Amino acid sequence: MKLDRDMALELVKAKLKKERFEHTIRVTDTAVKLAEMYGADVEKAERAAILHDYAKYRNREEMKRWIKSDPRLPKDLLHYHHELWHGPVGAVILEKEAGLDDAEVAGAIACHTTGKANMNVLDKVIFLADYIEPGRKFPGIDEVRGTAKEDLDKACLQAAHNTIFFLMSKGQKVYPDTLHNYNHLINIITHK
Amino acid sequence: MKLDRDMALELVKAKLKKERFEHTIRVTDTAVKLAEMYGADVEKAERAAILHDYAKYRNREEMKRWIKSDPRLPKDLLHYHHELWHGPVGAVILEKEAGLDDAEVAGAIACHTTGKANMNVLDKVIFLADYIEPGRKFPGIDEVRGTAKEDLDKACLQAAHNTIFFLMSKGQKVYPDTLHNYNHLINIITHK
Repeated sequence: MKLDRDMALELVKAKLKKERFEHTIRVTDTAVKLAEMYGADVEKAERAAILHDYAKYRNREEMKRWIKSDPRLPKDLLHYHHELWHGPVGAVILEKEAGLDDAEVAGAIACHTTGKANMNVLDKVIFLADYIEPGRKFPGIDEVRGTAKEDLDKACLQAAHNTIFFLMSKGQKVYPDTLHNYNHLINIITHK
Repeated sequence: MKLDRDMALELVKAKLKKERFEHTIRVTDTAVKLAEMYGADVEKAERAAILHDYAKYRNREEMKRWIKSDPRLPKDLLHYHHELWHGPVGAVILEKEAGLDDAEVAGAIACHTTGKANMNVLDKVIFLADYIEPGRKFPGIDEVRGTAKEDLDKACLQAAHNTIFFLMSKGQKVYPDTLHNYNHLINIITHK
Protein backbone atom coordinates (compact mmCIF):
# COMPACT_ATOMS: atom_id res chain seq x y z
CA MET A 1 0.00 0.00 0.00
CA LYS A 2 1.41 3.39 -0.95
CA LEU A 3 0.64 6.07 1.59
CA ASP A 4 -0.31 9.08 -0.57
CA ARG A 5 -0.63 12.69 0.55
CA ASP A 6 -4.36 12.66 1.25
CA MET A 7 -4.24 9.31 3.01
CA ALA A 8 -1.38 10.56 5.16
CA LEU A 9 -3.32 13.71 6.07
CA GLU A 10 -6.44 11.72 6.99
CA LEU A 11 -4.33 9.34 9.01
CA VAL A 12 -2.71 11.98 11.18
CA LYS A 13 -5.84 14.14 11.47
CA ALA A 14 -7.48 11.24 13.30
CA LYS A 15 -4.50 10.90 15.67
CA LEU A 16 -3.70 14.52 16.51
CA LYS A 17 -5.35 17.28 18.52
CA LYS A 18 -6.47 20.30 16.48
CA GLU A 19 -3.47 22.48 17.48
CA ARG A 20 -1.04 19.68 16.71
CA PHE A 21 -2.64 19.09 13.30
CA GLU A 22 -2.31 22.82 12.53
CA HIS A 23 1.36 22.63 13.57
CA THR A 24 1.72 19.66 11.22
CA ILE A 25 0.32 21.67 8.31
CA ARG A 26 2.74 24.52 9.03
CA VAL A 27 5.68 22.08 9.28
CA THR A 28 4.59 20.60 5.94
CA ASP A 29 4.46 23.99 4.21
CA THR A 30 7.87 24.88 5.67
CA ALA A 31 9.39 21.51 4.75
CA VAL A 32 8.19 21.76 1.14
CA LYS A 33 9.79 25.19 0.80
CA LEU A 34 13.06 24.02 2.38
CA ALA A 35 13.10 20.89 0.19
CA GLU A 36 12.70 23.04 -2.93
CA MET A 37 15.47 25.40 -1.78
CA TYR A 38 17.98 22.72 -0.80
CA GLY A 39 17.29 19.98 -3.34
CA ALA A 40 15.60 17.39 -1.12
CA ASP A 41 12.90 15.17 -2.63
CA VAL A 42 9.84 17.40 -2.26
CA GLU A 43 7.30 14.58 -2.19
CA LYS A 44 9.23 12.71 0.52
CA ALA A 45 9.65 15.90 2.53
CA GLU A 46 5.90 16.54 2.33
CA ARG A 47 5.12 12.98 3.38
CA ALA A 48 7.60 12.96 6.27
CA ALA A 49 6.37 16.34 7.51
CA ILE A 50 2.71 15.25 7.45
CA LEU A 51 3.56 12.10 9.37
CA HIS A 52 6.29 13.37 11.70
CA ASP A 53 4.09 13.65 14.82
CA TYR A 54 1.98 10.56 14.11
CA ALA A 55 2.88 8.97 17.47
CA LYS A 56 2.80 12.23 19.49
CA TYR A 57 -0.18 11.22 21.61
CA ARG A 58 0.54 7.55 21.96
CA ASN A 59 0.24 6.21 25.45
CA ARG A 60 3.61 6.34 27.18
CA GLU A 61 3.47 2.72 28.29
CA GLU A 62 2.75 1.62 24.72
CA MET A 63 5.75 3.61 23.47
CA LYS A 64 7.92 1.99 26.16
CA ARG A 65 6.81 -1.43 24.96
CA TRP A 66 7.73 -0.54 21.37
CA ILE A 67 11.16 0.69 22.45
CA LYS A 68 11.81 -2.45 24.49
CA SER A 69 10.59 -4.87 21.83
CA ASP A 70 11.64 -3.44 18.44
CA PRO A 71 15.32 -4.15 17.71
CA ARG A 72 15.60 -0.99 15.58
CA LEU A 73 14.76 1.30 18.48
CA PRO A 74 17.69 2.35 20.71
CA LYS A 75 17.08 1.23 24.29
CA ASP A 76 18.83 4.27 25.77
CA LEU A 77 15.76 6.34 24.81
CA LEU A 78 14.15 4.95 27.95
CA HIS A 79 16.63 6.92 30.07
CA TYR A 80 15.70 10.21 28.41
CA HIS A 81 12.59 12.41 28.32
CA HIS A 82 9.53 10.70 26.86
CA GLU A 83 9.09 13.71 24.59
CA LEU A 84 11.92 12.23 22.50
CA TRP A 85 10.15 8.89 21.93
CA HIS A 86 7.42 9.81 19.44
CA GLY A 87 9.83 10.31 16.51
CA PRO A 88 11.61 6.93 16.53
CA VAL A 89 8.51 5.07 17.73
CA GLY A 90 6.35 6.84 15.12
CA ALA A 91 8.70 5.75 12.32
CA VAL A 92 8.36 2.12 13.39
CA ILE A 93 4.62 2.03 13.94
CA LEU A 94 3.90 3.89 10.70
CA GLU A 95 5.57 0.98 8.93
CA LYS A 96 3.71 -1.62 10.97
CA GLU A 97 0.26 0.00 11.15
CA ALA A 98 -0.04 2.32 8.19
CA GLY A 99 1.93 0.69 5.42
CA LEU A 100 4.69 3.31 5.24
CA ASP A 101 7.38 1.65 3.16
CA ASP A 102 9.88 4.42 2.54
CA ALA A 103 13.02 4.14 4.65
CA GLU A 104 14.08 7.72 3.90
CA VAL A 105 10.74 9.13 5.05
CA ALA A 106 10.80 6.89 8.12
CA GLY A 107 14.38 7.93 8.87
CA ALA A 108 13.55 11.63 8.77
CA ILE A 109 10.56 11.07 11.07
CA ALA A 110 12.72 9.07 13.48
CA CYS A 111 15.30 11.83 14.04
CA HIS A 112 13.09 14.92 13.74
CA THR A 113 13.26 15.86 17.43
CA THR A 114 16.87 15.12 18.32
CA GLY A 115 18.70 15.19 15.02
CA LYS A 116 21.65 12.82 14.73
CA ALA A 117 25.16 12.71 13.29
CA ASN A 118 25.32 12.64 9.51
CA MET A 119 21.74 13.62 8.71
CA ASN A 120 20.91 13.59 5.00
CA VAL A 121 19.24 16.58 3.35
CA LEU A 122 15.73 15.18 3.92
CA ASP A 123 16.47 14.61 7.63
CA LYS A 124 17.74 18.19 7.92
CA VAL A 125 14.69 19.62 6.16
CA ILE A 126 12.27 17.89 8.54
CA PHE A 127 14.37 18.63 11.64
CA LEU A 128 14.57 22.32 10.72
CA ALA A 129 10.97 22.69 9.50
CA ASP A 130 9.72 21.36 12.83
CA TYR A 131 11.92 23.89 14.63
CA ILE A 132 11.17 27.04 12.59
CA GLU A 133 7.54 26.59 11.43
CA PRO A 134 5.79 29.98 11.79
CA GLY A 135 3.90 29.01 14.95
CA ARG A 136 7.09 28.42 16.98
CA LYS A 137 8.17 31.00 19.54
CA PHE A 138 11.63 30.18 20.95
CA PRO A 139 14.36 32.60 22.01
CA GLY A 140 16.60 33.06 18.97
CA ILE A 141 14.11 31.57 16.51
CA ASP A 142 14.13 34.57 14.17
CA GLU A 143 17.88 34.25 13.74
CA VAL A 144 17.43 30.58 12.77
CA ARG A 145 14.62 31.51 10.33
CA GLY A 146 16.95 34.04 8.72
CA THR A 147 19.79 31.52 8.45
CA ALA A 148 17.40 28.92 7.00
CA LYS A 149 17.13 31.11 3.89
CA GLU A 150 20.90 31.03 3.42
CA ASP A 151 22.45 27.82 4.72
CA LEU A 152 20.66 24.61 5.77
CA ASP A 153 23.60 23.27 7.82
CA LYS A 154 24.13 26.52 9.70
CA ALA A 155 20.44 26.80 10.49
CA CYS A 156 20.36 23.20 11.78
CA LEU A 157 23.46 23.96 13.87
CA GLN A 158 21.82 27.02 15.41
CA ALA A 159 18.72 24.94 16.22
CA ALA A 160 20.83 22.17 17.81
CA HIS A 161 22.88 24.75 19.73
CA ASN A 162 19.76 26.51 21.04
CA THR A 163 18.17 23.20 22.04
CA ILE A 164 21.22 22.07 24.04
CA PHE A 165 21.47 25.46 25.78
CA PHE A 166 17.75 25.42 26.57
CA LEU A 167 17.81 21.90 28.03
CA MET A 168 20.94 22.56 30.07
CA SER A 169 19.66 25.87 31.39
CA LYS A 170 16.67 23.91 32.74
CA GLY A 171 18.99 21.28 34.27
CA GLN A 172 17.73 18.59 31.90
CA LYS A 173 19.64 15.76 30.28
CA VAL A 174 20.61 16.01 26.60
CA TYR A 175 20.14 12.96 24.39
CA PRO A 176 23.52 12.01 22.89
CA ASP A 177 22.22 12.18 19.29
CA THR A 178 21.47 15.87 19.89
CA LEU A 179 25.15 16.44 20.66
CA HIS A 180 26.27 14.19 17.80
CA ASN A 181 24.18 16.33 15.45
CA TYR A 182 25.76 19.52 16.84
CA ASN A 183 29.32 18.13 16.60
CA HIS A 184 28.78 16.81 13.08
CA LEU A 185 27.37 20.12 11.84
CA ILE A 186 30.38 21.96 13.31
CA ASN A 187 32.59 19.60 11.29
CA ILE A 188 30.64 20.28 8.10
CA ILE A 189 30.68 24.04 8.54
CA THR A 190 34.37 24.13 9.49
CA HIS A 191 35.25 22.30 6.26
CA LYS A 192 32.99 24.34 3.93
CA MET B 1 58.24 -1.15 40.14
CA LYS B 2 56.02 0.81 42.48
CA LEU B 3 55.80 4.47 41.56
CA ASP B 4 55.98 6.23 44.94
CA ARG B 5 55.16 9.87 45.67
CA ASP B 6 58.68 11.27 45.34
CA MET B 7 59.41 9.28 42.19
CA ALA B 8 56.16 10.52 40.68
CA LEU B 9 57.03 14.13 41.52
CA GLU B 10 60.52 13.78 40.01
CA LEU B 11 59.04 12.16 36.93
CA VAL B 12 56.58 14.93 36.17
CA LYS B 13 58.91 17.75 37.17
CA ALA B 14 61.18 16.68 34.33
CA LYS B 15 58.27 16.67 31.86
CA LEU B 16 56.40 19.85 32.76
CA LYS B 17 57.02 23.56 32.42
CA LYS B 18 57.38 25.43 35.71
CA GLU B 19 53.81 26.85 35.63
CA ARG B 20 52.36 23.46 34.83
CA PHE B 21 54.31 21.82 37.65
CA GLU B 22 52.97 24.46 40.04
CA HIS B 23 49.45 23.73 38.77
CA THR B 24 50.13 20.04 39.42
CA ILE B 25 51.09 20.75 43.03
CA ARG B 26 47.90 22.77 43.55
CA VAL B 27 45.79 20.00 41.96
CA THR B 28 47.50 17.50 44.27
CA ASP B 29 46.76 19.54 47.41
CA THR B 30 43.15 19.99 46.30
CA ALA B 31 42.75 16.32 45.39
CA VAL B 32 44.07 15.16 48.76
CA LYS B 33 41.58 17.40 50.56
CA LEU B 34 38.68 16.23 48.38
CA ALA B 35 39.71 12.58 48.83
CA GLU B 36 39.70 13.02 52.61
CA MET B 37 36.29 14.71 52.50
CA TYR B 38 34.60 12.23 50.19
CA GLY B 39 36.25 8.96 51.18
CA ALA B 40 38.43 8.34 48.14
CA ASP B 41 41.77 6.53 48.63
CA VAL B 42 44.01 9.46 49.58
CA GLU B 43 47.24 7.88 48.38
CA LYS B 44 45.76 7.04 44.98
CA ALA B 45 44.29 10.53 44.70
CA GLU B 46 47.69 12.05 45.45
CA ARG B 47 49.40 9.79 42.88
CA ALA B 48 46.82 10.44 40.17
CA ALA B 49 46.94 14.20 40.76
CA ILE B 50 50.74 14.32 40.58
CA LEU B 51 50.70 12.35 37.35
CA HIS B 52 47.55 13.73 35.67
CA ASP B 53 49.33 16.06 33.23
CA TYR B 54 52.30 13.77 32.56
CA ALA B 55 51.65 13.77 28.80
CA LYS B 56 50.64 17.45 28.57
CA TYR B 57 53.61 18.48 26.46
CA ARG B 58 53.97 15.37 24.35
CA ASN B 59 54.40 15.99 20.70
CA ARG B 60 51.01 15.96 18.98
CA GLU B 61 52.11 13.49 16.32
CA GLU B 62 53.37 11.10 18.97
CA MET B 63 50.03 11.29 20.79
CA LYS B 64 48.24 10.58 17.50
CA ARG B 65 50.36 7.48 17.02
CA TRP B 66 49.50 6.27 20.52
CA ILE B 67 45.78 6.81 19.91
CA LYS B 68 45.93 4.99 16.58
CA SER B 69 47.98 2.06 17.87
CA ASP B 70 46.82 1.34 21.43
CA PRO B 71 43.58 -0.64 21.46
CA ARG B 72 42.54 0.88 24.81
CA LEU B 73 42.48 4.42 23.40
CA PRO B 74 39.22 5.48 21.71
CA LYS B 75 39.84 6.42 18.10
CA ASP B 76 37.19 9.16 18.08
CA LEU B 77 39.58 11.30 20.15
CA LEU B 78 41.30 12.10 16.84
CA HIS B 79 38.20 14.02 15.72
CA TYR B 80 38.26 16.24 18.80
CA HIS B 81 40.58 18.93 20.15
CA HIS B 82 44.12 17.70 20.85
CA GLU B 83 43.83 19.28 24.30
CA LEU B 84 41.71 16.23 25.21
CA TRP B 85 44.43 13.71 24.29
CA HIS B 86 46.94 14.07 27.13
CA GLY B 87 44.68 12.41 29.74
CA PRO B 88 43.99 9.10 28.00
CA VAL B 89 47.40 9.02 26.31
CA GLY B 90 49.12 9.87 29.60
CA ALA B 91 47.42 6.96 31.36
CA VAL B 92 48.71 4.54 28.73
CA ILE B 93 52.27 5.81 28.49
CA LEU B 94 52.65 6.02 32.28
CA GLU B 95 52.02 2.28 32.33
CA LYS B 96 54.41 1.63 29.46
CA GLU B 97 57.21 4.08 30.34
CA ALA B 98 57.05 4.69 34.06
CA GLY B 99 55.84 1.45 35.56
CA LEU B 100 52.46 2.74 36.76
CA ASP B 101 50.54 -0.41 37.58
CA ASP B 102 47.40 0.89 39.24
CA ALA B 103 44.32 0.74 37.02
CA GLU B 104 42.34 3.08 39.27
CA VAL B 105 45.02 5.76 39.19
CA ALA B 106 45.39 5.32 35.42
CA GLY B 107 41.61 5.51 34.99
CA ALA B 108 41.34 8.78 36.89
CA ILE B 109 44.19 10.26 34.84
CA ALA B 110 42.54 9.11 31.60
CA CYS B 111 39.24 10.93 32.22
CA HIS B 112 40.45 14.00 34.11
CA THR B 113 39.75 16.47 31.29
CA THR B 114 36.45 15.23 29.88
CA GLY B 115 34.92 13.20 32.68
CA LYS B 116 32.82 10.24 31.59
CA ALA B 117 29.61 8.46 32.55
CA ASN B 118 29.76 6.58 35.82
CA MET B 119 32.97 8.04 37.26
CA ASN B 120 34.03 6.51 40.56
CA VAL B 121 34.87 8.70 43.55
CA LEU B 122 38.59 8.83 42.66
CA ASP B 123 37.76 9.88 39.07
CA LYS B 124 35.51 12.63 40.40
CA VAL B 125 38.12 13.89 42.87
CA ILE B 126 40.76 14.26 40.14
CA PHE B 127 38.32 15.73 37.60
CA LEU B 128 37.13 18.31 40.13
CA ALA B 129 40.54 19.09 41.66
CA ASP B 130 41.88 19.92 38.20
CA TYR B 131 38.91 22.24 37.64
CA ILE B 132 38.88 24.12 40.98
CA GLU B 133 42.55 24.25 42.07
CA PRO B 134 43.20 27.75 43.47
CA GLY B 135 45.04 28.97 40.36
CA ARG B 136 42.03 28.51 38.07
CA LYS B 137 40.07 31.53 36.95
CA PHE B 138 36.91 30.53 35.06
CA PRO B 139 33.53 32.26 35.07
CA GLY B 140 31.47 30.57 37.77
CA ILE B 141 34.47 28.89 39.43
CA ASP B 142 33.73 30.27 42.90
CA GLU B 143 30.28 28.71 42.85
CA VAL B 144 31.86 25.33 42.01
CA ARG B 145 34.43 25.78 44.79
CA GLY B 146 31.61 26.43 47.24
CA THR B 147 29.66 23.40 46.07
CA ALA B 148 32.80 21.23 46.30
CA LYS B 149 32.64 21.68 50.07
CA GLU B 150 29.10 20.29 50.18
CA ASP B 151 28.47 17.78 47.40
CA LEU B 152 31.02 16.13 45.11
CA ASP B 153 28.45 15.14 42.45
CA LYS B 154 26.84 18.56 42.28
CA ALA B 155 30.25 20.23 42.00
CA CYS B 156 31.27 17.87 39.18
CA LEU B 157 27.94 18.60 37.47
CA GLN B 158 28.51 22.34 37.68
CA ALA B 159 32.00 21.88 36.22
CA ALA B 160 30.67 19.73 33.36
CA HIS B 161 27.84 22.19 32.73
CA ASN B 162 30.19 25.17 32.65
CA THR B 163 32.59 23.35 30.32
CA ILE B 164 29.87 22.46 27.81
CA PHE B 165 28.51 26.04 27.85
CA PHE B 166 32.01 27.44 27.43
CA LEU B 167 32.88 25.19 24.49
CA MET B 168 29.54 25.80 22.76
CA SER B 169 29.71 29.55 23.26
CA LYS B 170 33.02 29.41 21.38
CA GLY B 171 31.46 27.27 18.61
CA GLN B 172 33.62 24.28 19.53
CA LYS B 173 32.73 20.62 19.48
CA VAL B 174 32.02 18.80 22.75
CA TYR B 175 33.53 15.34 23.30
CA PRO B 176 30.68 12.87 23.90
CA ASP B 177 32.14 11.70 27.26
CA THR B 178 31.75 15.26 28.52
CA LEU B 179 28.00 15.05 27.83
CA HIS B 180 27.81 11.50 29.20
CA ASN B 181 29.35 12.78 32.43
CA TYR B 182 26.81 15.63 32.60
CA ASN B 183 23.84 13.33 31.89
CA HIS B 184 25.00 10.72 34.39
CA LEU B 185 25.47 13.30 37.15
CA ILE B 186 21.96 14.66 36.50
CA ASN B 187 20.68 11.10 37.00
CA ILE B 188 22.59 10.73 40.27
CA ILE B 189 21.42 14.05 41.66
CA THR B 190 17.80 13.50 40.59
CA HIS B 191 17.73 10.19 42.46
CA LYS B 192 19.46 11.41 45.63
